[in-house]
Amino acid sequence: MANPYEQMTPAEVRALIREGVIRGNTSGMCAGYAQANLVILPREQAWDFLLFTQRNPAPCPVLEVSDVGERELKIIAPGADIARDIPSYRIYENGVLTGEYTDVSAFWRDDFVSFLIGCSFSFEAELLEAGIPVRQIEEGRNVPMYVTDIPCVPAGIFHGNMVVSMRPMTPGEAIRATAITAAMPRVHGKPVHIGDPAQIGISDVSKPDFGDSVTIRPGEVPVFWPCGVTPQAAVMAAKPPICITHSPGCMLITDVKNSALKN
Amino acid sequence: MANPYEQMTPAEVRALIREGVIRGNTSGMCAGYAQANLVILPREQAWDFLLFTQRNPAPCPVLEVSDVGERELKIIAPGADIARDIPSYRIYENGVLTGEYTDVSAFWRDDFVSFLIGCSFSFEAELLEAGIPVRQIEEGRNVPMYVTDIPCVPAGIFHGNMVVSMRPMTPGEAIRATAITAAMPRVHGKPVHIGDPAQIGISDVSKPDFGDSVTIRPGEVPVFWPCGVTPQAAVMAAKPPICITHSPGCMLITDVKNSALKN
Repeated sequence: MANPYEQMTPAEVRALIREGVIRGNTSGMCAGYAQANLVILPREQAWDFLLFTQRNPAPCPVLEVSDVGERELKIIAPGADIARDIPSYRIYENGVLTGEYTDVSAFWRDDFVSFLIGCSFSFEAELLEAGIPVRQIEEGRNVPMYVTDIPCVPAGIFHGNMVVSMRPMTPGEAIRATAITAAMPRVHGKPVHIGDPAQIGISDVSKPDFGDSVTIRPGEVPVFWPCGVTPQAAVMAAKPPICITHSPGCMLITDVKNSALKN
Repeated sequence: MANPYEQMTPAEVRALIREGVIRGNTSGMCAGYAQANLVILPREQAWDFLLFTQRNPAPCPVLEVSDVGERELKIIAPGADIARDIPSYRIYENGVLTGEYTDVSAFWRDDFVSFLIGCSFSFEAELLEAGIPVRQIEEGRNVPMYVTDIPCVPAGIFHGNMVVSMRPMTPGEAIRATAITAAMPRVHGKPVHIGDPAQIGISDVSKPDFGDSVTIRPGEVPVFWPCGVTPQAAVMAAKPPICITHSPGCMLITDVKNSALKN
């Protein structure tokens, strides 16, 4: 069954989210448009976080940073209210999840800075377009994600190892997928590793740290991409006094076409 | 005559600069290694500037941002002392040039943040390697630069129009140069315009705003790239209380190979 919001514009869907008509997962909505992860931090921690994303652009591809205290986005979703246009938010205080909300405007502070971070949905759309399999979509699961032994470059209070997502494919498909995603550095870019999981500190590829396990067929190799869970994990580990994120799968739908994220 | 420092390593040349043995222009030193522009700002203005570079990555491709107060670089030139390893610095106070120095360690402050910004030397090396002409090098001049009517996305106190550099070439060369530089987003990336200068607000291509005029031969078109003078112009216009930059042509020589700046 097609998603009923697949053919609507991002602005239309964001309005329905704001009105409370749409709740839950944004997957499949507004076909062709990029979706973004959200991290909101007080200005006090925002400098270190912006530096962390600048130093680790592959796992942390920032699409927009709001002005301090500003709820309205201007670049990737002009007119969007970042406190109301995502279906579900999580609030963490000192690293502890303290609540899940459909609207965080009541919690807004003048020192909040919003970071919108690109997501692998964008390059998966391009892979599918090129006839390259995306196994977790075929199998109706979440993408498998793993904590590697590759350290991120630290910045102030933020540090940690890179988290990667994995898609199995044939070596020929892996080569084409590398070329396609290398041209999309604003949404994670090229793979960080192809093949033996042990080389990046993954002991058992059938047991992901996040998401679901997927089938690796005979003749396929696992292909690993930098993953947007990396900055989220760094934020959780840093335990800032307050942090607001999107709930898993409930993203900001932007006005930017996936195809516009190519070089 | 070959540059006597062409075959030395970046660390060796930075040491000679620090000792005062090398003074002046770094052009032609350490063949194959990227050189970087410098902007040092107090933390008070650094947030807005980092945001300006994030919002305008094509003219402001940041290679490294130092930790606050830290003179030692860690990523692109480990061990480098940013206050002493550039041959010549300029200090601006409230937008006015107040001095030129070979060492700015006496002026160092605990709240200084250094921004190292990628430079077109890196992609010019790749163009030359591909047999594409770089006219200002052939003619022994500075690259012609122009202020366009393309607005940058503002960030706090920083705003202004994009400055571009221009290289004339045949349409076929322009196509190859586009493909080559599209793969180098960390050093300005693909051209912002090809052809009619009036379309980006340049009234007379023979009269650059900065640098020198170069010959455009019959059958050639002007090709315009985002230029690192853009962030410098934005800083000058914002007139921060203090700002330290490299002197024109006197850059930081990094340990990063130009070829490593490809996707």
